[in-house]
Amino acid sequence: MRITEVVITPIAMKDPPLRNIHGVHQPYALRSILQVRTDDGLEGLGETYGDRAIVDALRLVAPRLAGLDPFDLNWLERIVRETLGGVAAEATHGLIGAASASKTLSTVFSAFEVACWDLQGHALGRPVADLLGGRVRDAVPYSGYLFFKAAAHVPSPGYPDDTWGEAMTAEGIVEQACRMVDEYGFRSLKLKGGVLPALDEADVILALRDAFPEHPLRLDPNTGWTVETSIAVSRKVEGVLEYLEDPTGGIEGMAAVAREVSMPLATNMCVTAFEHLAPAVRQDAVQVVLSDHHFWGGLRRSRELAAVCRTFGLGLSMHSNSHLGISLAAMTQLAAATPELTYACDTHYPYLVEDVVVPGALRFVDGSVPVPTGPGLGVELDLDSLARLAEQYEGAGFDTRDDVTPMLAIDPAWDPVIPRW
Amino acid sequence: MRITEVVITPIAMKDPPLRNIHGVHQPYALRSILQVRTDDGLEGLGETYGDRAIVDALRLVAPRLAGLDPFDLNWLERIVRETLGGVAAEATHGLIGAASASKTLSTVFSAFEVACWDLQGHALGRPVADLLGGRVRDAVPYSGYLFFKAAAHVPSPGYPDDTWGEAMTAEGIVEQACRMVDEYGFRSLKLKGGVLPALDEADVILALRDAFPEHPLRLDPNTGWTVETSIAVSRKVEGVLEYLEDPTGGIEGMAAVAREVSMPLATNMCVTAFEHLAPAVRQDAVQVVLSDHHFWGGLRRSRELAAVCRTFGLGLSMHSNSHLGISLAAMTQLAAATPELTYACDTHYPYLVEDVVVPGALRFVDGSVPVPTGPGLGVELDLDSLARLAEQYEGAGFDTRDDVTPMLAIDPAWDPVIPRW
Repeated sequence: MRITEVVITPIAMKDPPLRNIHGVHQPYALRSILQVRTDDGLEGLGETYGDRAIVDALRLVAPRLAGLDPFDLNWLERIVRETLGGVAAEATHGLIGAASASKTLSTVFSAFEVACWDLQGHALGRPVADLLGGRVRDAVPYSGYLFFKAAAHVPSPGYPDDTWGEAMTAEGIVEQACRMVDEYGFRSLKLKGGVLPALDEADVILALRDAFPEHPLRLDPNTGWTVETSIAVSRKVEGVLEYLEDPTGGIEGMAAVAREVSMPLATNMCVTAFEHLAPAVRQDAVQVVLSDHHFWGGLRRSRELAAVCRTFGLGLSMHSNSHLGISLAAMTQLAAATPELTYACDTHYPYLVEDVVVPGALRFVDGSVPVPTGPGLGVELDLDSLARLAEQYEGAGFDTRDDVTPMLAIDPAWDPVIPRW
Repeated sequence: MRITEVVITPIAMKDPPLRNIHGVHQPYALRSILQVRTDDGLEGLGETYGDRAIVDALRLVAPRLAGLDPFDLNWLERIVRETLGGVAAEATHGLIGAASASKTLSTVFSAFEVACWDLQGHALGRPVADLLGGRVRDAVPYSGYLFFKAAAHVPSPGYPDDTWGEAMTAEGIVEQACRMVDEYGFRSLKLKGGVLPALDEADVILALRDAFPEHPLRLDPNTGWTVETSIAVSRKVEGVLEYLEDPTGGIEGMAAVAREVSMPLATNMCVTAFEHLAPAVRQDAVQVVLSDHHFWGGLRRSRELAAVCRTFGLGLSMHSNSHLGISLAAMTQLAAATPELTYACDTHYPYLVEDVVVPGALRFVDGSVPVPTGPGLGVELDLDSLARLAEQYEGAGFDTRDDVTPMLAIDPAWDPVIPRW
């Protein structure tokens, strides 16, 4: 089995005006869809960020893959390194920690790696989870991801606004949570913070605790707070959070918070590559790492991350950016074969109003996604949808994620400084 | 693909009187050979220790595997844990660190796991290295393993003695090394120490350095020395060893040596399970870990160990006990797919005079074993040889490794105390 052709399609999908420390989501989230074809007629799918620099890097690598055996992940890694080693831009956005050329390499590799696993699964007639050591769970629990949000984008993107409505208060978030739990059955809840003043967000958590006394809760201000503020918030929600995610920036900052608070600290911002693990462990800076196969180097490296976490007594959870069904399938296959994962995974999927995969393979039952049992990732590309979202990309008017500019359109006085409180 | 039948065959293979800190090898080394068969007519091979407690544990697990999918390593692990969790004996010998029930579990799991990889490879028509991420080398370098030894067993086992002759002096070891290098092409050399007084072994290393100025050299006294002696030896061979292996016992002891010496310390005795890694890293006790899929939990866990070593800046090498071709094939497939491995692997294979695999698949070229390219492990069982070695096991007169008793037959005044110098 040898790769013969790779098709990279950047797409834009409608996205609600979700708020975070960097501002607000644009009207479209950008993704890249990969189709990797082989000489025996198989096609493997991949999905990653759609920012211009990533698309450019994917397109540099793609023609170099002709002739590659999809089982040869080590060789794939070498091709990516040799192609991009000298030229990779710092392409990822700040919500997954500092951008770096090496993170770009790892991100590009990951996208192709997932497509290779999909191909391996198709070649074998088995789901990817089988190839990762076997399912330890038949359904993967996800958390209900709560966002502060406006009712509509500013200016209007020219498509009907999402149905989730405004949520800028504790009442609005609790209402959003009720709908998340009613419609999807989520058994844990995560609030994206960094939007209201820190102690006000602690009040939102306390309101969620009142409304959902049994649901594990998480809060993630994306390093929006100082060490002092992080400690103050922690004290206010003492015993309420299952973990507090990236309250402040940097391994040293997180370590300073960790020394003063009793709840576990989680991160997908200060530990985002293998080289961050040793300093984080030495300083006991974090207690939970949020894996993300999109930038950790794919499914195999994510399994290795799980092994490192197990070995050093770190908890393991899973991070999400806005994504489509290919990524949800990959996350679910990986999580199914990862016994070290003891927290519900994050996902933006409930905010998705259009997908590139054929409906049916992915669904939420009691807050969990049953592991697709078809070969490979278990999802199939809907070519009409792909074409439509590709056309939407061409008309989106931007090719790189930017949460600041639309935020300034809402509030010209808004200050993007971090830490903010 | 489902497992239908498992055959466990303990065998005894002729073994020369190799010396170590615990005494001397018995006239036979004991191994267990596993044949794991599936409903589609495939057979996967495994090999592990042949000590009675391991054979008993393998036989307890074997009937529980009927119906298992050989891809489902997580489920295999669960079966082993559930079968042996309460009853596992401390079955491994002291040369691979402290025996424990959990090491027995891991050892038993490993043997079946390798057979499952062999089955996966046969099902796919691909070598195991392909399934582990792809070959990063076409041939795996091994080191020439030098042993102090007598010319013959005492008493005579009734078979012609080995051809290696006595080697109890620097001259004898250099002569052995010359033959190793001439016949196999080894490009690095390892001396099993713990036999002569420590500083005399340092003299042997210096003699090897004179004879082989370019060959990386290692010395391994299996924790035979005190911290003080370890430091004294290190100073005597300063700049001569690529690493010093297990000079003294325990993570604390190794850390105490590491603080005082400049050469890397390696271990397969104080870090022999994942739970030893965190304390070893925290104390900077070792700089190189010798992996061994036989007790680290198979090929997948060995890949995870490689990832931990890479992440924490530890070197990775590979340990060997007396073994047959099935294990050499597994070691070679694993090493081929492990870029983190930067040292030549250990092997006792040159001392082997009889094997259970069909000749031809395994050979040494310039000190390296070309990675077998057939499906699975790439070796085939020779049923006549298996039957002969199984018969030899029945007549061996012992069912558990014991290096002390034959040593006392040679020298009744010999004192097994450790540390000895």
